[in-house]
Amino acid sequence: MAAGRVLVYGGKGALGSTCVKFFKTKDYWVGSIGHSNNDDADANFLVTTGSLTDQEEEVTSQVAETLGELKLDAIFCVAGGWAGGNAASKKLTESADTMWKQSVWPSVIASRLAALHLKNGGLLALTGAQPSLAGTPGMIGYGLAKAAVHQLTQSLGGQKSGMPPDSVALAILPETLDTPMNRKWMAKADFSTWTSLEFVAELFEKWTCGHDRPVNGSLVKLVTRDSQTQFVVV
Amino acid sequence: MAAGRVLVYGGKGALGSTCVKFFKTKDYWVGSIGHSNNDDADANFLVTTGSLTDQEEEVTSQVAETLGELKLDAIFCVAGGWAGGNAASKKLTESADTMWKQSVWPSVIASRLAALHLKNGGLLALTGAQPSLAGTPGMIGYGLAKAAVHQLTQSLGGQKSGMPPDSVALAILPETLDTPMNRKWMAKADFSTWTSLEFVAELFEKWTCGHDRPVNGSLVKLVTRDSQTQFVVV
Repeated sequence: MAAGRVLVYGGKGALGSTCVKFFKTKDYWVGSIGHSNNDDADANFLVTTGSLTDQEEEVTSQVAETLGELKLDAIFCVAGGWAGGNAASKKLTESADTMWKQSVWPSVIASRLAALHLKNGGLLALTGAQPSLAGTPGMIGYGLAKAAVHQLTQSLGGQKSGMPPDSVALAILPETLDTPMNRKWMAKADFSTWTSLEFVAELFEKWTCGHDRPVNGSLVKLVTRDSQTQFVVV
Repeated sequence: MAAGRVLVYGGKGALGSTCVKFFKTKDYWVGSIGHSNNDDADANFLVTTGSLTDQEEEVTSQVAETLGELKLDAIFCVAGGWAGGNAASKKLTESADTMWKQSVWPSVIASRLAALHLKNGGLLALTGAQPSLAGTPGMIGYGLAKAAVHQLTQSLGGQKSGMPPDSVALAILPETLDTPMNRKWMAKADFSTWTSLEFVAELFEKWTCGHDRPVNGSLVKLVTRDSQTQFVVV
């Protein structure tokens, strides 16, 4: 008998893989959604098609077939990407389009999955970004996509949002996650301000169990100083 | 000799048509961008293609060919649409996708046009929505798209955003605009709280001339009571 059932959207990414692995050590049934399989997961739901509505259809039909009437304790959407560029950049529209597809599409589909399969009192966690709480002139496409995720979180936390009763939707807002890619591209940064992926996975598990869970609709900053992370509700 | 040159993105819509007409009465050269021509405009730039990057290429190449080295006094992006639906709606992803294309695509392309063709000290006005300052559980796709426009505005108002020196980017945040469609669909509403399209067009013209222009990056609420409208910077 599993401790519970969770889905990780972006389960093959750096943070996603850490979450899949961590929840498996806690005896959860773990499903992974993404463009490639995570062999540590109990089930994989592949995203292969083009448009947002096609991806939703592809993902929701697979998940419905696997789960049937079983409900989920939590859904974590940790899919995402990064691109820089201001309005003078020739790649402005390209980066806005890519960021939308990488951050907002999975977040909207995860919201739909939550409406369909999350148990009463369950948890949906999306991934925002602290810089998007204000303007981000050097990374316009990234900033606006994450701002959309923030407002989506606030919508899901409101009355009659379509989420199951007593469930909680929130977004984590990291500064910088301590991923291999970030280590590679920002090799000279101060890593003591970066948030470890294990911390996020542990936090997700605590919230899944109802410990220290922020209120519905919360934007939750992850603030790391001297390698110690605290979460601060905006 | 024209009083100045402005572009209206969405120049065939209700607000757009009013703006085109108003600026013509003030002797401006007016270009209209949209899916169909506005015969009142001096020039029309048609949007016919599919993707965001294709639309950008289509619009920027036409505008560049027409303007050459001439600069614009202002760009008004008043393209947009509306769709309801919460997370339980089967049409959640469809409405998010449509709202993104109708509100965010034109706003991003208008930002690119501003970086390329706005004069120093020029004005870019985008269109947000007051409800998106918080969650919008009954209209999730609409809310998140407008929230993206708000954060885009803040980005454009920041340092090194790629906008021309001394130019101002802002967004108007209406509650309800007094359009024929809104009259049709909300026939029993209190129209004395709706903002007239002529008010918006006049305000745009004042701001274009530099009168009462809010600071760069402003989100500007349009608040109408007893048929009188004030603008309030958030």
